[in-house]
Amino acid sequence: MSSEGVTEDCLGWAARDSSGVLSPYKFSRRAVGDDDVYIKITHCGVCYADVIWTRNHHHDSKYPVVPGHEIAGIVTKVGSNVHRFNVGDHVGVGTYVNSCRDCEYCNDRVEVNCVKGSVFTFNGVDVDGTITKGGYSSHIVVHERYCFVIPKSYPLASAAPLLCAGITVYSPMIRHKMNQPGKSLGVIGLGGLGHMAVKFGKAFGLNVTILSSSISKKEEALSLLGADKFVVSSDEEQMKASAKSLDFIIDTASGDHPFDPYMSLLKTYGVFVLLGFPSVIKFSPANLNIGMKTFAGSITGGTKDTQEMIDFCVAKEIYPNIEVIPIEYANEALQRVVNRDVKYRFVIDIENSLRS
Amino acid sequence: MSSEGVTEDCLGWAARDSSGVLSPYKFSRRAVGDDDVYIKITHCGVCYADVIWTRNHHHDSKYPVVPGHEIAGIVTKVGSNVHRFNVGDHVGVGTYVNSCRDCEYCNDRVEVNCVKGSVFTFNGVDVDGTITKGGYSSHIVVHERYCFVIPKSYPLASAAPLLCAGITVYSPMIRHKMNQPGKSLGVIGLGGLGHMAVKFGKAFGLNVTILSSSISKKEEALSLLGADKFVVSSDEEQMKASAKSLDFIIDTASGDHPFDPYMSLLKTYGVFVLLGFPSVIKFSPANLNIGMKTFAGSITGGTKDTQEMIDFCVAKEIYPNIEVIPIEYANEALQRVVNRDVKYRFVIDIENSLRS
Repeated sequence: MSSEGVTEDCLGWAARDSSGVLSPYKFSRRAVGDDDVYIKITHCGVCYADVIWTRNHHHDSKYPVVPGHEIAGIVTKVGSNVHRFNVGDHVGVGTYVNSCRDCEYCNDRVEVNCVKGSVFTFNGVDVDGTITKGGYSSHIVVHERYCFVIPKSYPLASAAPLLCAGITVYSPMIRHKMNQPGKSLGVIGLGGLGHMAVKFGKAFGLNVTILSSSISKKEEALSLLGADKFVVSSDEEQMKASAKSLDFIIDTASGDHPFDPYMSLLKTYGVFVLLGFPSVIKFSPANLNIGMKTFAGSITGGTKDTQEMIDFCVAKEIYPNIEVIPIEYANEALQRVVNRDVKYRFVIDIENSLRS
Repeated sequence: MSSEGVTEDCLGWAARDSSGVLSPYKFSRRAVGDDDVYIKITHCGVCYADVIWTRNHHHDSKYPVVPGHEIAGIVTKVGSNVHRFNVGDHVGVGTYVNSCRDCEYCNDRVEVNCVKGSVFTFNGVDVDGTITKGGYSSHIVVHERYCFVIPKSYPLASAAPLLCAGITVYSPMIRHKMNQPGKSLGVIGLGGLGHMAVKFGKAFGLNVTILSSSISKKEEALSLLGADKFVVSSDEEQMKASAKSLDFIIDTASGDHPFDPYMSLLKTYGVFVLLGFPSVIKFSPANLNIGMKTFAGSITGGTKDTQEMIDFCVAKEIYPNIEVIPIEYANEALQRVVNRDVKYRFVIDIENSLRS
């Protein structure tokens, strides 16, 4: 099935059915087009989205599913029109690899809001009808617009989680003006996204409170992540003592939980940003109207924001806390993500473990 | 029980129990303090809040309840420290008559958010422990800070509804930047607040769509109020055709209704502002996160905003649509408010109908 110019023999790990079990899988990538960058993948972060689509939680999985949308690697070929990247450059790819590039949102470089829909990095349907395959693989071919510069001073393994967890947190923080030193931020959920929210919050000069269901994370949250305060959300007394104390809350929890107890922690004009997808959002209007609060949602960010976020991490020396694993550990890692047993992001060492 | 300087013989109409039935009631107002303004009430608007507390919906009514917090009248006495007002001035009083005047919110002149709580104009507990009594009465004594200048060119009857309905709509419209010509606004509920939202929207240069459960209001909404479009919210086809078409929605409905159908009308970055108090707020996270939307709450506004709103109405010749009634009609008017049978605000002609 090969034709001249088609880059084949891409090695990946794929789920074949809703068991979600990953195993080696060979497939072809498209030939490098004029605007494309060919990236030898060195690292790929493990995101909860990888669980969702390998296990068909949304009933829209197109098997085989090669997951992974926190991709870091090295450019090894570029198309004739590519000017931003050269062979040898370090680059990242995030949650989408295509969009119409013609609508108001694409023109504003918030392609995630593309009116025709951005094409997800895996399990997406590309403009040519092919199903996209993600970063649990040896290489990827991506239009240069959806690739990001990673300075060589910044480790590729650390860069990977920025491409989803990082931008998903950073984008709403900027949009809702959380970069105001001296203001206060509460963070719900201490996984890949939550721990980045703490780091960005501290870098923005915020007073950061972790809102956690379990006291077990307290010591590490304060010392390792640098949070200022730790509140056990199940402790009514602690929650009451924190009433009306926060300017912002970022909710990174993936599961269902009540919102009213958290809304009551917001000051007047407080902003609550939801990043997860609980089964439903439900709270009392008194907890919103009185104090004129705002409840906002967000999903990842645009290419402009993403590059800005990477540059911010480089400048401020912000690094995700990662556990580097070989591809053979991917299945166990995904289960540990489900079990919330990760500090704070798994990153697959594709370069040194993925072999045919 | 009179003492020198105490202004007594205030005549009002009060509810005595949760039947909410109003009848004449005599009581005393406090003496005019150094910072106080004594206002001969000429008009008072009829707000849904009057129903809530005369009928004890919140189980906190302190009978006898003299309702009314859309007060317009003429200054007849002023305290020795009062400089903003003179005898003969036309003034308004809104939903609160006191606050701590010392917290960050009072200092910003958003006294509605006072950390000690603003004192409501009726059924509130004032700093001296007395229960406040509202504008269904012959006169009122109010600290000058909570009084507003009404230029004599603007009819007092028209001014009354601005003091609650007007500011409750205007304040979040400004806060959420709805004064951007060319943007689009949807208005849910076409009562006292909703019809003002349409008028402010048009004055701000917005394209205004009425979202109504009943087509019966269509003709009038378009011709009388000047809305651009009318969508029957129960008509799935019409709602579908309006998907992702609105930058803003203001929800002035007082009762329960689903939120998801309306959230789906918002564009990316769209803002939904809730002004009512349904029993619960409930919607799907997909309708919030995808498109990065915002769901915000609000209650009335501060004294700075209120004066600004009145001045805006004067400058732009914006007048509420009112039905002027005598005080004897108050009970029927309140029932018609419950029945949503009002176009669009009742205003009691206190001056010409309230007599001992």
